[in-house]
Amino acid sequence: MSIGHRTWAIAEGWLPPRAGGQGRALESHEAACVLNAGDRDAHLDIEVFFVDREPAGPYRVTVPARRTLHLRYDDLESPEPVPRGVAFSSVLRSDVPVVIQHTRLDARDEAMTLMTTMAHPVVGEGA
Amino acid sequence: MSIGHRTWAIAEGWLPPRAGGQGRALESHEAACVLNAGDRDAHLDIEVFFVDREPAGPYRVTVPARRTLHLRYDDLESPEPVPRGVAFSSVLRSDVPVVIQHTRLDARDEAMTLMTTMAHPVVGEGA
Amino acid sequence: MSIGHRTWAIAEGWLPPRAGGQGRALESHEAACVLNAGDRDAHLDIEVFFVDREPAGPYRVTVPARRTLHLRYDDLESPEPVPRGVAFSSVLRSDVPVVIQHTRLDARDEAMTLMTTMAHPVVGEGA
Amino acid sequence: MSIGHRTWAIAEGWLPPRAGGQGRALESHEAACVLNAGDRDAHLDIEVFFVDREPAGPYRVTVPARRTLHLRYDDLESPEPVPRGVAFSSVLRSDVPVVIQHTRLDARDEAMTLMTTMAHPVVGEGA
Repeated sequence: MSIGHRTWAIAEGWLPPRAGGQGRALESHEAACVLNAGDRDAHLDIEVFFVDREPAGPYRVTVPARRTLHLRYDDLESPEPVPRGVAFSSVLRSDVPVVIQHTRLDARDEAMTLMTTMAHPVVGEGA
Repeated sequence: MSIGHRTWAIAEGWLPPRAGGQGRALESHEAACVLNAGDRDAHLDIEVFFVDREPAGPYRVTVPARRTLHLRYDDLESPEPVPRGVAFSSVLRSDVPVVIQHTRLDARDEAMTLMTTMAHPVVGEGA
Repeated sequence: MSIGHRTWAIAEGWLPPRAGGQGRALESHEAACVLNAGDRDAHLDIEVFFVDREPAGPYRVTVPARRTLHLRYDDLESPEPVPRGVAFSSVLRSDVPVVIQHTRLDARDEAMTLMTTMAHPVVGEGA
Repeated sequence: MSIGHRTWAIAEGWLPPRAGGQGRALESHEAACVLNAGDRDAHLDIEVFFVDREPAGPYRVTVPARRTLHLRYDDLESPEPVPRGVAFSSVLRSDVPVVIQHTRLDARDEAMTLMTTMAHPVVGEGA
C-alpha cells in the first residue's frame, strides 16, 4: 500500500521567539505531520526557505514503515537550528510516498490557538 | 450522483488526555466529517497509525446514502479505543466515493480553539 | 478568464444554537466564500446533508460576474432555514467555474476562534 | 527545481477595521505566503475581488528566486489600498511556479486566533 506523494511544500512557517520562562509558552510548536502508510521506511530531506537568505538544509528525517511522525521544526538541529521569529517555508522530499499535514499551535497568549492544512503535494516531473 | 474519493488520509491526530472533571474540557474532540452524497451506503474501514507501534484497526463505520457523519475518534471502541495523549494519523477507505474533512476542537483551555482541513484524497491505483 | 470548478463539497457544517442575548455571540457564522472571477454570473444550487434526515434544498444563490460572495449558512431561508445545533455537510453546484472556501467563526466563547479550508473540488463526470 | 503552480485563488479575505490604539490589535493580518523554490524570480500580479464593486489591481509583487514572502494584504498600496472591514477574494498569477498558503491572524480580541489553508491551485488552460 503506497499512499501520498514524494514531494510536499508548506509555504507558511514561523517559530515564536524563545520564551524566557517556562509553562504554556514553551508548548508552542510548528509541525509537519508525516504519515508513512507504506511498507518501506521513508527518508526525508527537508529544505527551509527564508525571506532574505539562502535556504537551510537539507535536514534529514526517517519515518519508519507504517508509522507517523509529528515533526517539530524547533527540533531540527543539523545542519543548523531553524531561526526563531522569522518567516520561512519548507519543501519536504521523500524517497517513498507519504502524506504531510501542517499544524501550528500558538500558546504565547493566555489562550492557545490552532491552525492546520494539508501541505501542497507536488505532482509531475521532478516531484 | 457520486462525489469524492474512496481513500482519504489525515496525517494529524491527537486526543487530549481524559479530563478528570466535567464541563467544557469534555467537549474537546478530533473528528473526521464524512459526507456520503451518493445513493448507496458507504462502508468505511479506518486504520490508525502511531509513532512507535503497529497500526490499530480496522475500525468499521457505515455512513448511509445521502447522509453525513461527524465521526469522533474518541467514539471508536473496537477493536480497541484510540489512545489518548499520543500523536496518530489515519487512513479511511470507503467502498463508495465520499468527502472527508478533518476538524479538531480543543477546549482544554479557558478558551476553545478550532482547526480544520480537507483530508488528502488518494488518487490512482490502490485507492 | 474562467477559474475553479463547478462542483464543490464541504463535509463540515454546524450552526451554534441561537443565542438569546446580543453581542459577540451573534457574530458567530459558518460561511462558504464563493469567488466568481469569470465574466458570467454564477448560479449556484446548494444541497445540505444531515445525519438522520433527507437533504434540504436546493438553496439558490447568484454570484455576479467578477464578484465574491461570503455566503452565510444562517442566511439561507428558502426552502427552509438550516437547522441549528446539528451537524451538516453541503454540496455546491454552479453553472460556471467558481472557487469556494469554507470558514467558521465561533464567538460563543469569551474569545473567538477561526478555522478555514478550501472546499473539495469535484472533478470528472457529473461535476 | 520548479515547484507549484502559476495561478492561485483565495476565496476568503477580510481586513479588520483600523484600530485606533496600539498594541496587539495592530498585529492582526491577512497574509498570502508565497514560496518560490525555483531558480528564477517570480513576478506576481494580484487581483482583488469584492462583493459590490469592480476588482482592484493588479498589485505587483516580486518574490526572488529561492526565497519566501509572507505578503500582507494591508501592505498593498498601489494602485489603491485594500479596503478594511469588507469581504474580498484574490487571484494571484505568477510568471513561474510558486506555492501559496493563506493565513489570517485575528488579534482584535483579548486572545488571538489563527486560521490557514493552502490556496486553490488553478490548473489547465489560462492558468
